Amino acid sequence: MSATKAYAAQSPTTPLSPFNFERRETGPNDIKIDILYCGVCHSDIHQVRDEWGGSIYPMVPGHEIVGRVTETGNLVKNFKVGDIAGIGCFVDSCRTCPNCQSGLEQYCDNGMVATYNGREKVTNNPTYGGYSTQIVVDEKYTLKVSPNLLLEGVAPLLCAGITTYSPLRHVGVGKGHKVGVLGLGGLGHMAVKFAAAFGAEVTMLSSSPSKEADAKKLGAHHFALTSDKATMNGLQNHFDFILNTVSAQHSYGTYLDLLNTNGTMIVVGVPPTPSEVPAFNLIMKRRSIIGSLIGGIKETQEMLDYCAEHNIVSDVEVINVQDINGAYERMIKGDVRYRFVIDIASLK
Amino acid sequence: MSATKAYAAQSPTTPLSPFNFERRETGPNDIKIDILYCGVCHSDIHQVRDEWGGSIYPMVPGHEIVGRVTETGNLVKNFKVGDIAGIGCFVDSCRTCPNCQSGLEQYCDNGMVATYNGREKVTNNPTYGGYSTQIVVDEKYTLKVSPNLLLEGVAPLLCAGITTYSPLRHVGVGKGHKVGVLGLGGLGHMAVKFAAAFGAEVTMLSSSPSKEADAKKLGAHHFALTSDKATMNGLQNHFDFILNTVSAQHSYGTYLDLLNTNGTMIVVGVPPTPSEVPAFNLIMKRRSIIGSLIGGIKETQEMLDYCAEHNIVSDVEVINVQDINGAYERMIKGDVRYRFVIDIASLK
Repeated sequence: MSATKAYAAQSPTTPLSPFNFERRETGPNDIKIDILYCGVCHSDIHQVRDEWGGSIYPMVPGHEIVGRVTETGNLVKNFKVGDIAGIGCFVDSCRTCPNCQSGLEQYCDNGMVATYNGREKVTNNPTYGGYSTQIVVDEKYTLKVSPNLLLEGVAPLLCAGITTYSPLRHVGVGKGHKVGVLGLGGLGHMAVKFAAAFGAEVTMLSSSPSKEADAKKLGAHHFALTSDKATMNGLQNHFDFILNTVSAQHSYGTYLDLLNTNGTMIVVGVPPTPSEVPAFNLIMKRRSIIGSLIGGIKETQEMLDYCAEHNIVSDVEVINVQDINGAYERMIKGDVRYRFVIDIASLK
Repeated sequence: MSATKAYAAQSPTTPLSPFNFERRETGPNDIKIDILYCGVCHSDIHQVRDEWGGSIYPMVPGHEIVGRVTETGNLVKNFKVGDIAGIGCFVDSCRTCPNCQSGLEQYCDNGMVATYNGREKVTNNPTYGGYSTQIVVDEKYTLKVSPNLLLEGVAPLLCAGITTYSPLRHVGVGKGHKVGVLGLGGLGHMAVKFAAAFGAEVTMLSSSPSKEADAKKLGAHHFALTSDKATMNGLQNHFDFILNTVSAQHSYGTYLDLLNTNGTMIVVGVPPTPSEVPAFNLIMKRRSIIGSLIGGIKETQEMLDYCAEHNIVSDVEVINVQDINGAYERMIKGDVRYRFVIDIASLK
């Protein structure tokens, strides 16, 4: 056991505050990591405030974790002390179901173990996330991170990055494709970077004219204001793919109409209530909608390696952990370009 | 021009009644067909009653047409007098857009010309459908029908058949797949036949316990009552594909949950208002929804050839054209197993 400092929510209504606890021993397959940076995901707010139900308190949020290995169990093969390691949204899964066997642990038939607000398989103890000084994780659920990348920008790759990389790869986005990215936030800004890196012609679809300059800096070739009717009419049947990152309530129909024959809308945002789908908008051009959840360990590693090769990281605002409650308020207003990342040195 | 007897709607509110008109001359690329049978599609009712807007009166419905060639234009290559021919939902398209060029005329960028309630490209005259003694169509939009098949059972293949065959082929349904068919009507009964013929394990999903015996006769291996909670719970994450033929209002969420990882719901029914899609149900197993509209000429011919080879036709109730208004009322109640087909001899 090792003393760990953290910031935690003690209930759905109290601000996050300092919290000390004991991390589990480093088991034979585990590595212990001194956390350097932890990204702040919008789902942290939902879970801290119990907006999805079932929250476990005290809760140490954070599933976009980058740190340095300080200890390795005696069966660990792929990590050594001093390596840079990353932890994403889950730290275990059943390892035996068809999804786990095929590298899709995020869809584990028996439920993945979330990095926080979950329960460890053997002990049933709560899992505590990355707003903390250290974490202990089985090496099979740990990623290798190139020390050449800007590490604060790597943290959000573990969730926002893989959430957009995985479906763009799954549907085969590449050269010759017209891709629309709907919504420029933590997910959207990574989607623009990846789709452009894969060779697609990328259009940012946003309701905020102020985001045009940023979208183009991120790699978007075009910007389309979704509130402008003429613009939207001109984009009917235009895209091969639309990556929809919007988590506010909206109907899918308007955006389905922007897809060409066989076009696909990828849904990664989760609006609070179900979205409407007019069947005609799907049927008239054999359009489709596909959902996607983060990515498996193998693909997350592939993404990190791709990012190292192409020097891709998230655009972040680094904060001290003491600023976390204010950061949440800014995120709710959409006031962050494009991800807050906690400098864990502020906890020590 | 040639005198043609038909049944037509004169307004959205009057019953169909006898109607005589002149068919166009048989042009150099046209064939003239003496219609033998015409299937009755639910969309006939919607258009007769102007429920989709824009209906053209008088309207001669019918787009599931089988007949015998009686005349051929001097440039016609593939048909001769005496051949059995079929006409489906459209009789022309722009022929030049990417969709037309790739055999997806149903998604023509400039709009296909519907077999009825449309307008001919050159003359802008209304098109009149198959509740009539004869029809004149360009051979490129005409299908070859094997005279060995029961012709009254072939008529519905031109719409209900291809509407289900095409998406099952597009998504690659075959051996080893678990396929659910939602709704046992004109579309559903063909979906069961095709999915079973392609080698899939087929489950009929229906709210009517009375349909179990029929579903199994049609080739379904299993029957699941959608109102039974235990049955539905047992089918969570079960199917690779669900073909959703339901045109009544319903949420897609319940059925998405029956799909396994990477499972796809194919939508061919058009509910009167948009359906709800909870994003979580898509995201949690990388599930998708795809729409599909009838099929192109090449694939419709492929389906008819497949049906001839495997002796597949629709299960039909043959009626006289004078019974059409009563047939509509029965269709609205779902009281037909599984398609009405008009014996056009009753018009002569």
